[in-house]
Amino acid sequence: MKAVLFEHFREAPSIRNVPDPKPSTDGVVVKVEATGLCRSDWHGWMGHDADIVLPHVPGHELAGTVQAVGRQVTQWRVGDRVTVPFVGGCGHCHECNSGNHQVCEQQFQPGFTAWGSFAEYVAIDYADTNLVRLPEELDFVTAASLGCRFVTSFRAIVDQAKVLPGEWVAVHGCGGVGLSAIMIATAMGANVVAIDLTEEKLAFARELGAVATVNGAEQDVVAAVKEITKGGAHVSVDALGHPSTCFNSIANLRRRGRHVQVGLMLGDHATPQVPMDKVIAHELQIVGSHGMQAFRYKAMMDMLETGKLKPQKL
Amino acid sequence: MKAVLFEHFREAPSIRNVPDPKPSTDGVVVKVEATGLCRSDWHGWMGHDADIVLPHVPGHELAGTVQAVGRQVTQWRVGDRVTVPFVGGCGHCHECNSGNHQVCEQQFQPGFTAWGSFAEYVAIDYADTNLVRLPEELDFVTAASLGCRFVTSFRAIVDQAKVLPGEWVAVHGCGGVGLSAIMIATAMGANVVAIDLTEEKLAFARELGAVATVNGAEQDVVAAVKEITKGGAHVSVDALGHPSTCFNSIANLRRRGRHVQVGLMLGDHATPQVPMDKVIAHELQIVGSHGMQAFRYKAMMDMLETGKLKPQKL
Amino acid sequence: MKAVLFEHFREAPSIRNVPDPKPSTDGVVVKVEATGLCRSDWHGWMGHDADIVLPHVPGHELAGTVQAVGRQVTQWRVGDRVTVPFVGGCGHCHECNSGNHQVCEQQFQPGFTAWGSFAEYVAIDYADTNLVRLPEELDFVTAASLGCRFVTSFRAIVDQAKVLPGEWVAVHGCGGVGLSAIMIATAMGANVVAIDLTEEKLAFARELGAVATVNGAEQDVVAAVKEITKGGAHVSVDALGHPSTCFNSIANLRRRGRHVQVGLMLGDHATPQVPMDKVIAHELQIVGSHGMQAFRYKAMMDMLETGKLKPQKL
Amino acid sequence: MKAVLFEHFREAPSIRNVPDPKPSTDGVVVKVEATGLCRSDWHGWMGHDADIVLPHVPGHELAGTVQAVGRQVTQWRVGDRVTVPFVGGCGHCHECNSGNHQVCEQQFQPGFTAWGSFAEYVAIDYADTNLVRLPEELDFVTAASLGCRFVTSFRAIVDQAKVLPGEWVAVHGCGGVGLSAIMIATAMGANVVAIDLTEEKLAFARELGAVATVNGAEQDVVAAVKEITKGGAHVSVDALGHPSTCFNSIANLRRRGRHVQVGLMLGDHATPQVPMDKVIAHELQIVGSHGMQAFRYKAMMDMLETGKLKPQKL
Ligand SMILES: [Zn+2]
Ligand SMILES: [Zn+2]
Ligand SMILES: [Zn+2]
Ligand SMILES: [Zn+2]
Ligand SMILES: [Zn+2]
Ligand SMILES: [Zn+2]
Ligand SMILES: [Zn+2]
Ligand SMILES: [Zn+2]
Repeated sequence: MKAVLFEHFREAPSIRNVPDPKPSTDGVVVKVEATGLCRSDWHGWMGHDADIVLPHVPGHELAGTVQAVGRQVTQWRVGDRVTVPFVGGCGHCHECNSGNHQVCEQQFQPGFTAWGSFAEYVAIDYADTNLVRLPEELDFVTAASLGCRFVTSFRAIVDQAKVLPGEWVAVHGCGGVGLSAIMIATAMGANVVAIDLTEEKLAFARELGAVATVNGAEQDVVAAVKEITKGGAHVSVDALGHPSTCFNSIANLRRRGRHVQVGLMLGDHATPQVPMDKVIAHELQIVGSHGMQAFRYKAMMDMLETGKLKPQKL
Repeated sequence: MKAVLFEHFREAPSIRNVPDPKPSTDGVVVKVEATGLCRSDWHGWMGHDADIVLPHVPGHELAGTVQAVGRQVTQWRVGDRVTVPFVGGCGHCHECNSGNHQVCEQQFQPGFTAWGSFAEYVAIDYADTNLVRLPEELDFVTAASLGCRFVTSFRAIVDQAKVLPGEWVAVHGCGGVGLSAIMIATAMGANVVAIDLTEEKLAFARELGAVATVNGAEQDVVAAVKEITKGGAHVSVDALGHPSTCFNSIANLRRRGRHVQVGLMLGDHATPQVPMDKVIAHELQIVGSHGMQAFRYKAMMDMLETGKLKPQKL
Repeated sequence: MKAVLFEHFREAPSIRNVPDPKPSTDGVVVKVEATGLCRSDWHGWMGHDADIVLPHVPGHELAGTVQAVGRQVTQWRVGDRVTVPFVGGCGHCHECNSGNHQVCEQQFQPGFTAWGSFAEYVAIDYADTNLVRLPEELDFVTAASLGCRFVTSFRAIVDQAKVLPGEWVAVHGCGGVGLSAIMIATAMGANVVAIDLTEEKLAFARELGAVATVNGAEQDVVAAVKEITKGGAHVSVDALGHPSTCFNSIANLRRRGRHVQVGLMLGDHATPQVPMDKVIAHELQIVGSHGMQAFRYKAMMDMLETGKLKPQKL
Repeated sequence: MKAVLFEHFREAPSIRNVPDPKPSTDGVVVKVEATGLCRSDWHGWMGHDADIVLPHVPGHELAGTVQAVGRQVTQWRVGDRVTVPFVGGCGHCHECNSGNHQVCEQQFQPGFTAWGSFAEYVAIDYADTNLVRLPEELDFVTAASLGCRFVTSFRAIVDQAKVLPGEWVAVHGCGGVGLSAIMIATAMGANVVAIDLTEEKLAFARELGAVATVNGAEQDVVAAVKEITKGGAHVSVDALGHPSTCFNSIANLRRRGRHVQVGLMLGDHATPQVPMDKVIAHELQIVGSHGMQAFRYKAMMDMLETGKLKPQKL
């Protein structure tokens, strides 16, 4: 098959002919119909991810049809239309058994721990645990786009932040993760304040449902969020991943507010400072969010089906 | 002042001149600008409520302006536009201290434990704990309508059922409580199935957001809900209060589903049968819901303000 | 192998020579070292359980060593010392994926859905999902006794009731389930009130940590529990499974109290009456509890290891 | 009355005759029978607390008898034996209404926002909300010692960490807060690992129930905790309040572990670095804990009464 492959970090990848993948006993091979690209791919290519073994084929945001099935797979057949979360759980560790495949102890990540979807075919391990069936009406391109930013935001907002209707939610950074978070929190009945540095992105945030916006290039972000929310956000998300957005996102909370760290913090940014004095005095909560389990796609898909979420707008 | 008063249960009330109320030391007197009527008033007039002492003035769904203030009240002034939940907490018992005024041990209920709002003025005790400030843009009639059915449904759906986005919510009975529940669950991103006996009410339910409806006069309710929801509802609400809606609402749940009993069960209906074999085998949850605390109005009001809830449509 | 087998419901079982079991591809065969008996076996033998196909070998409380391993099993080897919960999850349905194997949609139950442990060997399906490794220091007899009553109580008290330290917990019925519940709730810092009809059992309950007891043959149970707990229990468990213990267990709760139904309700007792008027007015919660997942044994085992739980005392 | 008073920060306090306090309308005056001292007093005397107005009388850990009662107080009488939490809620802000007096927006703190208990008498505002009745059998000295370190640990372990039985809990720092946390977590059925720099304190920690100890002067704390707990603590508490204990306490968690920051972080330590990369990848949770509400003393007192907690051992 043809695949996009790089042999050295930070050097241009090229299209090569490589052997077709075979399914592991508990895995499948998927014919790739659509694949996406995000900042995690850039991190991988830069050499920031210790899981990658060279030469490497990237690609973790994918949708396609099952083309071959390992002999232990019981739930899937050739021809099934599928996608996968970017973190695949092994299905047998303590985390997987408790329903927390997103922090599995032996994760399968296409495009990181194995060759990914910038290829005609991609092998996916632990298929029974991780494959997600696509509804008829969901096209491959939209499906591929769900697998990373959108599901990450879904888990962050729904399962980690546990946003309640009528709460004020501040979203720091209006890239793919942030815009997804805005759409999802709005669909749950929250009042969203979007923060970014450009008016263009803030305008799009308002289109997706944000009831207020703050331009960090012009305003004191923490003061502005506190004023708009009359005391601070109930929930705040760092959707970018930077020490300053992280700090602001904690600092703009009201008493007992919850910060969710979604944007990755790697390299120099791995250990940012946080306003711990305020965390104590106001009993703030900080929580990380990492991907989403395959079984949680069902709720998201049911919202797509009834038009409550429209990822194709992003 | 003039008031609607009855001297005997089940006998016609009449309009009388009675002395103007005076505020208790921790209470206020409210000039009534709007007042509503619901089935609870009928129960009270029938003699089903042991709290009522004759002669009695009913009325618990009210909005108005503060007209007099007791000397211990610190948060309210003459002229403030207000409403109150139908259960007022004393502010000092264990339940109130823990934030659960809706199940206060010494409840103040206008129209039940004291004379109510079918009068020019009504005295409200424990004012600092229970009064709710009306936003400028909220008219008295809408505000009065919130105080009973709408807030009851808000607590039932948001705080007791803890509905999540993408969940399937069955609402049994499309009266005031049920329609409120449909609007609120829809605003939270849930997929609602409405159940009633008349097509007219079901049509209105669909207008308010229900994605499917079941006519109990024509269909097997439990089977229909299970089919629509592909396995059973995650959450089901008995918004009517009848042994059969209660039973169906539990029986149509999927594994680990949650039933919320909102519709009152009094007299002959006080101790209905439930499918406890299924409660065990499927680990179902049953929970009651009773009014809502004054401090929780804030989230609801913030949703009204941004147009996410529109009680005036009911 | 030799096995205890019955060919008709309600007729005496006999010891027979039957073919040795073979492991399914995802299962193991366990050499039975210890096996227990409980009221569920009686229900099975009476014909109350629709899963049982005749002729049948009962037995669901077991411990032993792995004797043969199916070819898809990755986590277990011949010679491993193991036990299993009485409900085995399939590992692939929505419930299992979410960590709720105790309500799996395709349960494997040794002694019910398949031949059980009253035999020299027993086949256990879905081994990777359901086997539990025994610590060196845990003998087979104690381990076998955990699998049904003790783990059922652990889940009921810890995961379903979510008992908090300092709470008052009423346990109705001091059989195996009830005594386990008393030991576990006590180990969590709760104050337990035990209820039974015989002084002997109540004396044993006190030995296991109950701080108060009520003899239902002599006292009004609901009134007594309310007096001892100064207002009602925070948590109450029907450990027997009878309409009257179920009703009392709900009726003796304080406001916002939680009833857990553990004792089975079958046949004539399947749909008991509950005081729903009080469930609403006091916002009570009723929840069922059914077995326990294999992965939750770890916390229980860690308590055994440090002497915080002593099931051998039961 | 006589009182210990200082006129300048960092200068020796002296005993003076000052006017007797009078109760505010919603407050009481308590005759001080016992009073304690802790590091917060040192912070106050150093000038780290912006609430203190000079000249000042310190003292926030107190027990005594009510000596005078303001005219709006309804729950208390002269002669009542009482203590108070060090944070008193106003009883009327949003936080207090929701049951979160520990983060009240207008806190009353004896010894900080007002003169404290190093005096014959101390005035306590918001008495109906904050006074705690002492059981007959609880002496004043023990009661005074509860009000700061012990209740802070109770909330941290029970309400903020939500420790479960069988979980591994790491406690960093074996001073008053840490030892209280060890006793409380042990009483809940958790397995506690105590960390400190001196063998003497670790020996005392074992006496109070710690099942393992780590001497940070001799061992790599994070590695040692991970080894003892076979993968990391479920819950970890920084009971000291230092950037290094805070960092270690987060770093030694297992996947989805919860860190509770109890030890104060002030001045130079206010914004410590945290391993946010791990917070994301392992979905860790960080939460602050601040005092405890008066109404939550009841559960703690019930545990004292049945001997499940013994603060007098500390
Ligand atoms: Zn991506
Ligand atoms: Zn795993
Ligand atoms: Zn009403
Ligand atoms: Zn009250
Ligand atoms: Zn059994
Ligand atoms: Zn299953
Ligand atoms: Zn307050
Ligand atoms: Zn102190």
